[in-house]
Amino acid sequence: MYYPEPIAKLIESFTRLPGIGPKTASRLAFHVITMKEDDVIDFAKALVSVKRNLHYCSVCCNITDTDPCRICQDKTRDPSVICVVQDHKDVVAIERTKEFNGYFHVLQGAISPMEGIGPDDIRLKELLNRLTDERVKELILATNANIEGEATAMYVSRLIRHFDIKVTRIAHGLPVGGDLEYADEVTLSKALEGRRELR
Amino acid sequence: MYYPEPIAKLIESFTRLPGIGPKTASRLAFHVITMKEDDVIDFAKALVSVKRNLHYCSVCCNITDTDPCRICQDKTRDPSVICVVQDHKDVVAIERTKEFNGYFHVLQGAISPMEGIGPDDIRLKELLNRLTDERVKELILATNANIEGEATAMYVSRLIRHFDIKVTRIAHGLPVGGDLEYADEVTLSKALEGRRELR
Repeated sequence: MYYPEPIAKLIESFTRLPGIGPKTASRLAFHVITMKEDDVIDFAKALVSVKRNLHYCSVCCNITDTDPCRICQDKTRDPSVICVVQDHKDVVAIERTKEFNGYFHVLQGAISPMEGIGPDDIRLKELLNRLTDERVKELILATNANIEGEATAMYVSRLIRHFDIKVTRIAHGLPVGGDLEYADEVTLSKALEGRRELR
Repeated sequence: MYYPEPIAKLIESFTRLPGIGPKTASRLAFHVITMKEDDVIDFAKALVSVKRNLHYCSVCCNITDTDPCRICQDKTRDPSVICVVQDHKDVVAIERTKEFNGYFHVLQGAISPMEGIGPDDIRLKELLNRLTDERVKELILATNANIEGEATAMYVSRLIRHFDIKVTRIAHGLPVGGDLEYADEVTLSKALEGRRELR
């Protein structure tokens, strides 16, 4: 035992966070000693508050501290488009573009038979319920560009084929600023496949 | 505002830690949502406890939750040697070698005229008080091997020249496993200077 007990406990807590090993954890723990007491108390409160005050939005299944969440409450958005994403972080990513003004639906995962995640394990029922709203005209499937994301997009598009709703998938291709030379074959073939006519 | 408030606050708290940028902070904050509530509460308690229950040992000036600290309380150690270090982390480093069985003195810094840190700003007075104990026979100066550490070691050795105490400095040289080829000139000249006869 080289550390006083309070430090040892804090190091242990930091080590439980992803990507933080024992060295970083002890550096962070010792930094806490030098912080202002108020800041440390705010930190502790923020930790507990995140765990206690967050839940899932009853409409879009995003993580929120209000119900419905701020996006679902926003009446200035376009109710005709719902963007379907896997994760709450994807909502943040799309919001950051400032290009999308519809609503979201967070599936909280993707179909993955390998991991035993089937259609009933993600928030598809909630999505179907929302589609009974006649204002919905388009569903943008913005799941990830990997096997699980593609499978989920495919599944959702088949699931709602009886609804009179346009289903679109976000484009795959070369990232902006990307060099053709370094692109992998799959991305490049997707980019070729998705080519558009220049006017 | 893309994040619910509790998350935004936690991200801000994480960002204040050294080496944690906004991306890592948001990753950590979202991880906290998925942690068990008990673990989060333990984490929060550990944070506050580190700030509230730690103070400096009245003997060696190390960070501790008891007074005197566990090392100063340990009567099995050799009272004739005091190892002088700059920082509480140095105590941990030396303890880890399991080679040292004396007591420590933590200066809590080094003399650095560039940063306006003079002899009165580090715990030298406390060190001098301890030297009145007649059992002390040797002072090992284990300050860092940089300008501030060297200056501090020099200052301490002059300060106590009137005491009948042996003053030693830890050796500088090639790190074990280090290649001569990649050693910098200063380390290498220190290694030559500190050469010892093989018996």
